[in-house]
Amino acid sequence: MGDNHWTSAITEIGPNVIRLRGYPVEELMGNIGFAEAIYLALQGDLPDAATGKLLNAIFVSSIDHGTSPPSVLTTLTVASTGAPLGSAVAAGILAISKFHGGAIEDCMKTLGHGIEHARHKNSPFADSAQTIVDAFKAKGTRISGFGHRLHTKDPRTTRLLAMCDELGKSADGVKMARSFEEVFAKTGKPLPLNVDGAIAAVLVDLGIAPGMANAFFMIARLPGLVAHAHEEKTRYKPMRVVDPKDTGYDGPPLRHLKG
Amino acid sequence: MGDNHWTSAITEIGPNVIRLRGYPVEELMGNIGFAEAIYLALQGDLPDAATGKLLNAIFVSSIDHGTSPPSVLTTLTVASTGAPLGSAVAAGILAISKFHGGAIEDCMKTLGHGIEHARHKNSPFADSAQTIVDAFKAKGTRISGFGHRLHTKDPRTTRLLAMCDELGKSADGVKMARSFEEVFAKTGKPLPLNVDGAIAAVLVDLGIAPGMANAFFMIARLPGLVAHAHEEKTRYKPMRVVDPKDTGYDGPPLRHLKG
Amino acid sequence: MGDNHWTSAITEIGPNVIRLRGYPVEELMGNIGFAEAIYLALQGDLPDAATGKLLNAIFVSSIDHGTSPPSVLTTLTVASTGAPLGSAVAAGILAISKFHGGAIEDCMKTLGHGIEHARHKNSPFADSAQTIVDAFKAKGTRISGFGHRLHTKDPRTTRLLAMCDELGKSADGVKMARSFEEVFAKTGKPLPLNVDGAIAAVLVDLGIAPGMANAFFMIARLPGLVAHAHEEKTRYKPMRVVDPKDTGYDGPPLRHLKG
Amino acid sequence: MGDNHWTSAITEIGPNVIRLRGYPVEELMGNIGFAEAIYLALQGDLPDAATGKLLNAIFVSSIDHGTSPPSVLTTLTVASTGAPLGSAVAAGILAISKFHGGAIEDCMKTLGHGIEHARHKNSPFADSAQTIVDAFKAKGTRISGFGHRLHTKDPRTTRLLAMCDELGKSADGVKMARSFEEVFAKTGKPLPLNVDGAIAAVLVDLGIAPGMANAFFMIARLPGLVAHAHEEKTRYKPMRVVDPKDTGYDGPPLRHLKG
Repeated sequence: MGDNHWTSAITEIGPNVIRLRGYPVEELMGNIGFAEAIYLALQGDLPDAATGKLLNAIFVSSIDHGTSPPSVLTTLTVASTGAPLGSAVAAGILAISKFHGGAIEDCMKTLGHGIEHARHKNSPFADSAQTIVDAFKAKGTRISGFGHRLHTKDPRTTRLLAMCDELGKSADGVKMARSFEEVFAKTGKPLPLNVDGAIAAVLVDLGIAPGMANAFFMIARLPGLVAHAHEEKTRYKPMRVVDPKDTGYDGPPLRHLKG
Repeated sequence: MGDNHWTSAITEIGPNVIRLRGYPVEELMGNIGFAEAIYLALQGDLPDAATGKLLNAIFVSSIDHGTSPPSVLTTLTVASTGAPLGSAVAAGILAISKFHGGAIEDCMKTLGHGIEHARHKNSPFADSAQTIVDAFKAKGTRISGFGHRLHTKDPRTTRLLAMCDELGKSADGVKMARSFEEVFAKTGKPLPLNVDGAIAAVLVDLGIAPGMANAFFMIARLPGLVAHAHEEKTRYKPMRVVDPKDTGYDGPPLRHLKG
Repeated sequence: MGDNHWTSAITEIGPNVIRLRGYPVEELMGNIGFAEAIYLALQGDLPDAATGKLLNAIFVSSIDHGTSPPSVLTTLTVASTGAPLGSAVAAGILAISKFHGGAIEDCMKTLGHGIEHARHKNSPFADSAQTIVDAFKAKGTRISGFGHRLHTKDPRTTRLLAMCDELGKSADGVKMARSFEEVFAKTGKPLPLNVDGAIAAVLVDLGIAPGMANAFFMIARLPGLVAHAHEEKTRYKPMRVVDPKDTGYDGPPLRHLKG
Repeated sequence: MGDNHWTSAITEIGPNVIRLRGYPVEELMGNIGFAEAIYLALQGDLPDAATGKLLNAIFVSSIDHGTSPPSVLTTLTVASTGAPLGSAVAAGILAISKFHGGAIEDCMKTLGHGIEHARHKNSPFADSAQTIVDAFKAKGTRISGFGHRLHTKDPRTTRLLAMCDELGKSADGVKMARSFEEVFAKTGKPLPLNVDGAIAAVLVDLGIAPGMANAFFMIARLPGLVAHAHEEKTRYKPMRVVDPKDTGYDGPPLRHLKG
């Protein structure tokens, strides 16, 4: 062992041995799903069943949002130059940053701040939410995770919070998010919790660190970027102008899961 | 609609409407897993149950392989400079290319070539495998998907093929892969099917196009890259020398899933 | 020295020693320009004075082309998400590939093919150019480096070839490029040499390998990408829609170098 | 003009018209060098002759530093996977961030802070430098731009400051950098100005904003990354272990400019 010896706690590798966080990978295959394995890789332990269900729901909810997000426009623009699919999606991932995807982390921090405030002051969540909203207003900045350009009642938000309640996982994060929503509702200019805010609330209650939020979003969104890069390469001519406004949907019409 | 009008068949977006390939996303949440949603996004339709299980197994099998792959070394080196996590994993994705991850696509093409050869010549798979092996030998190139530097009997391969058999999904792809293995076995210098080859065989039988193979690998591996970037940033000092050889594992010891 | 010992012939480093291709860097500073140092780094030796002048002209000619190239749109889209400047320009570089910037390499190969054909057949360049144009036509593909969407008489082309002539560097590459132009002119549908074709011709005559052409273009264009990323970050609000069509120029009006 | 109309002040494009910051590009070709054009693109105006010389010297000084910088190791690791040259250098650029290249920006800010302190307090530079050094010491952080792991008397630093003096460009930035150096010298544990600090001092005196420092470094270093990627691809087998320690130089021996 030299001066630069270092270790990793993620995967043990040896001849015919691959163990993720201690579990033989061949034992995980067929017994846990991809979402559960992602949690194991990132958090170091297997999620409980309810957490696994919520993670799957979060990943599914964020897999794609059509052609308007900057990560998709970036991926399409790079794909249209004839670059390999990997270059196109890597460029798209570079667009997932402060203002695109970053709202989850910001909202997690605000929720965490509110929860700490309530604990420290021994005050009701509603009062702490009000204090924080007032502080943001005074600074003239808006709170990430509330309000949406397009979706006034985001179906993903409703579904995710309902699942979190049903699965018995809603705790301080979800409670504080709802307290914020109530504070906004009282102003006459309601700002409903958006999908970033809902994911933030659930991730807080699952014990995920805010610094990992962007990573969860990247993992969720990569398949969407791949789908767009593939569509660009198979459907359009190279070097077309990717117009972010003059676009529409022409896939399958509304359909529902069977049984 | 202007001259540059274009459409996408992936996701329909409207006020309070997000439909992936026609399915309302809130209906998918809680009812299908992440792996199934990935298949839906990429392939356009939901997988059947057996396909869903195999996809989960493929993603789980490929989520990480310790610190030696170039994508991980790239991610660690970039992360150690203080770059954001997204930059570190985007750089890692750029390392997934021809010689890293690319074996799956190459092997899928070879298997497809063998299957076509057998059909066209109306000959047994074993004969077509022999013909192709001879052609590769004549060119002095090796066939991707067979043999491994470290794993002589890769536990992921065994498990994935067993699952594919049990789930009734093994077809020409798996059959042709085994034919190649038999050809190699006869040479006295056996080259066992490696995990890339096993994934290639299963993806052929699931009807995935070879051009998507690298994308499946990137999707599978991104969580591993995130875990390594996070470990680098939380555990090591910036600008350390990331020595690819002087490294070890210090995570949890061998453990097993509970009942 | 271990099993993985390796060497590099680019820069020698020791305590208080930095030597680029053998030259002490402090001796190069102030005595050669950046373009000459680029040539030294890439080609291994210093360029002669005429080559240095042509390289500077090539780099200057390609430093920027406004807001329409996909590399710029990519850089702007990533910059608008709040990503660091380095992420924005790295994404832009990923857009410089086969169809964006790649024409220089393609044209260099075609010119090289023409030159070899003429040598091999001992035929005039005009005949070889005609043969190659006919072959491309038969395949239904167009020859990179000729014709432009916007510029019918690209001022960069005229200037670069005039400089190359004046500096006594025009040789087979430029001669063959002009032979192609003459072949096209005879068809009644003239395709003038564009800037990619002119750079290709000059790079052939400077003895640069076609595989380095894209690299020269990336080096030339990076400052332009930086300028656009900086403008995006200092002038526009995050997450704006970067409309590739609805854009104009509002910088300094036409001005000229002083005497 | 629609709602998203936007403008750029960098390059005006029209049929047969390409004007960088107002100057016809064909007029710039042959009359200014690449370094001067970079300044024009980034800063909006042409540099004076002395500034042009210093910029060339800065770019030349930073073009490469052998195989140890993380940007080079990243580029090599990606190149060794068979990824395109553009992917390899884009990954390398992602490694130029806070702790790699970032020292120039940090040092520029500290120098600027010292200059402002001296102005505001109407105190000698030496006193302001002492005050700031004491403040850093109290926080237990070191000042970027001083000291080097390898170079105790960096030849690039000496040369760059000598050029800046000779060209009459040394002003408050260089003066403050020297004041810091004197403060460190008095401690008995001298920390000489390193190349990042020297570049920082000169950029301050050239009126460049600290936020552009990393961009200057990226532009300077890209050719070095290209040279390393090219060497990797032409000299080594794919997927080799890029050992950051077991490496040496085998290029041309020490040589000098003629005349």
